[in-house]
Amino acid sequence: MKVALLSGGVGGARFARGLVDVLAPGELTIVGNVGDDVEILGLHVSPDLDSLLYTLAGLSDEERGWGRAGETWNALAAAATWGGDDWFKLGDLDLGLHLVRTLALREGATLSAVTAGLIERAGLAATILPATDDRLRTHVETPAGTFSFQEWFVGRGHRDDVDAVVVEGADEAGAAPGVMDALDSAAAIVIAPSNPYVSIAPILSITEIRAALERRRVRCVAVVGGAAVKGPADRMLARMAGGTTPAHVASCYEGLVDALVVDESDLPAEAPVELVATRTLMVDRDASGRLAEVVLETACA
Amino acid sequence: MKVALLSGGVGGARFARGLVDVLAPGELTIVGNVGDDVEILGLHVSPDLDSLLYTLAGLSDEERGWGRAGETWNALAAAATWGGDDWFKLGDLDLGLHLVRTLALREGATLSAVTAGLIERAGLAATILPATDDRLRTHVETPAGTFSFQEWFVGRGHRDDVDAVVVEGADEAGAAPGVMDALDSAAAIVIAPSNPYVSIAPILSITEIRAALERRRVRCVAVVGGAAVKGPADRMLARMAGGTTPAHVASCYEGLVDALVVDESDLPAEAPVELVATRTLMVDRDASGRLAEVVLETACA
Repeated sequence: MKVALLSGGVGGARFARGLVDVLAPGELTIVGNVGDDVEILGLHVSPDLDSLLYTLAGLSDEERGWGRAGETWNALAAAATWGGDDWFKLGDLDLGLHLVRTLALREGATLSAVTAGLIERAGLAATILPATDDRLRTHVETPAGTFSFQEWFVGRGHRDDVDAVVVEGADEAGAAPGVMDALDSAAAIVIAPSNPYVSIAPILSITEIRAALERRRVRCVAVVGGAAVKGPADRMLARMAGGTTPAHVASCYEGLVDALVVDESDLPAEAPVELVATRTLMVDRDASGRLAEVVLETACA
Repeated sequence: MKVALLSGGVGGARFARGLVDVLAPGELTIVGNVGDDVEILGLHVSPDLDSLLYTLAGLSDEERGWGRAGETWNALAAAATWGGDDWFKLGDLDLGLHLVRTLALREGATLSAVTAGLIERAGLAATILPATDDRLRTHVETPAGTFSFQEWFVGRGHRDDVDAVVVEGADEAGAAPGVMDALDSAAAIVIAPSNPYVSIAPILSITEIRAALERRRVRCVAVVGGAAVKGPADRMLARMAGGTTPAHVASCYEGLVDALVVDESDLPAEAPVELVATRTLMVDRDASGRLAEVVLETACA
C-alpha cells in the first residue's frame, strides 16, 4: 500500500524507518519539513531531510540522536579559528553532503532534484521529498524577540517560551514535484511523531498540501510520540494549545486527521478524533516497526 | 630592512619562513601567486596563499609537504559518496578556512581583505598579499590539450609536457592593495625558489607588478631552489627555456633580476646576471634561515 508521511527530523525519521521496515520497497513517500533549513558558513543545510536520509541509510548516530555515526568536527573547529560561525554543529561527514548540495543548488538544481540524487546514491527503499522547492523559513516569536528556528532551537537552546510560529514564504510556496501526487494517490496519509508547531505546521502551511489533506479520501493518522512530546513540543503545546493531552495535539490538526495514535500512558483521554493507544516510544528499530504496524492498521481501519 | 618577496606555494613558503626568521617583525611582505586558485565543491581555494599562511603559522604538515598537520579527510570522502569531486585533496581542517573565505568573498569582501583577516588571526609577523584581487587563472598548453593549472598539476599529476603557460585575466588584473607600495618601498625584492612558469610568471603577468620590477631602484634577487627545480619546473625549463642551467632560469626573469642565488651543485655556470652559490636545499628551518641570509646579503651587495 502506498503511504505518504509528513515528517520532521529525528523522531520522524525513526518512525519512517519503522514504516520502511513494514512496507514494501517503494511504497513510502516522505514529505519532509524544510522550514528549519538554514545557511551556515555559506552552505545550505536541510536538517530534517538529512535526518531522514541518514536514518534510512543507516548512517545516523543512534546514541547522539542526530547527525552521522563516526562523525568528526575538524572543519568546524578550524572555521571557528578563522572567525567562522560554529554555533550550528556541522560535522565533517555531514559537511560533505552540504557541500555537494549547496553546489548543485547554486548551479540551478532544485532541492527536490538534489534530494532525489542523494536518495538514489544511498539506495533507499523510500522516497524523500522536500515539502517545497521554494524558500520556507520558520520563525518563532518569543518574549525575548523573534528568532529563526535554528537560532532559537540550537543557538539559544530553545530556552525561550514560544508565543507563535510564523512560516516565512508559506504564501508563495508551492508543493515540490511529486508531493501532490504522493498525497493524492496514497492509500493512507500519516503524520509522524514530530513537533506539530515547528516540524509539521510548516509543511501544512503550504496551501496545496493543506488542501490535499482537507480533501483526502483516505484516512489520515497522526502519531503522538511519547518522547517527542517531551521537551520543546510539550512546552509549546502547553503555551499555545493550552495543554498537552491528545485533545490538545488534535487541535493542531483540526479537520486534517481521522485518528491519533497515542502512548498508552496518555489514556484515559478524550479527543474529537479516534484515539488508538500503543507504545509510541521508539526505543529500538523493532519498536519503530511495531508502532508503524499499529499506525497502518489504524489508517486502514 | 623592508623586503618584498614574490612567491608561489610550498617551496616559496619554506623560504619565506627563513626570511621571517632573519628579518624583524613586519619587515617582510609576500606577494603570493593566485593563478592556481581553484573552485572546488563551490569553495574558493587559494593553494599558494594557504601554503604561505599555514607554513608561517606553524600549521603545515612538514612531512607531506603541503596542507595542514593533523589533517583528516572525512568531508571529502563523504562528498565523494554523494557525487562530489574529490580529485583535489581538501582536508577537513583546510576546509574550515575555505568555508570562511568563500563566504566572505561571496558577501563582497576582496581576497586581500580576507587574507589580511586570516593573517591577523594567525598572528603572523609577515604580511601576505595576493598578487591581485582580480580573477587570474593559469592554464597550461600541452600535447594532450589545454588544462587549468590544477587540472594539470593535481588532476593529471603534471604528467603532460608543457608547451606554453597562459595566464587568463592578466590583461585586466590590477595589483592588489598594498602590492605596489610593498614593491616600491622595499629595500630588496626577492623572487622565491618557486616554479618560474606557473608560480612566478602569473604574478609578473600583472602589468603593474612587472613594471615595478623593471623600474626598481633596489636589487632584485631570485632564488633557484635545488629541490624546486626538480620535477615539473625542471621539465618546463628544459622544454620551454631549452635547458635547466642558471642561465636558463635567468632567461625567465630577463631584465627583472640582478642576481641569482643558486645551488652549489649548479656551478660552474655562467649567466647574464650575478651568480651566488650556496646550499639552496631547505632541509630544515635552519637551512631556510641560512639561505635567507645569503639572499639578503646578495640583495644588499
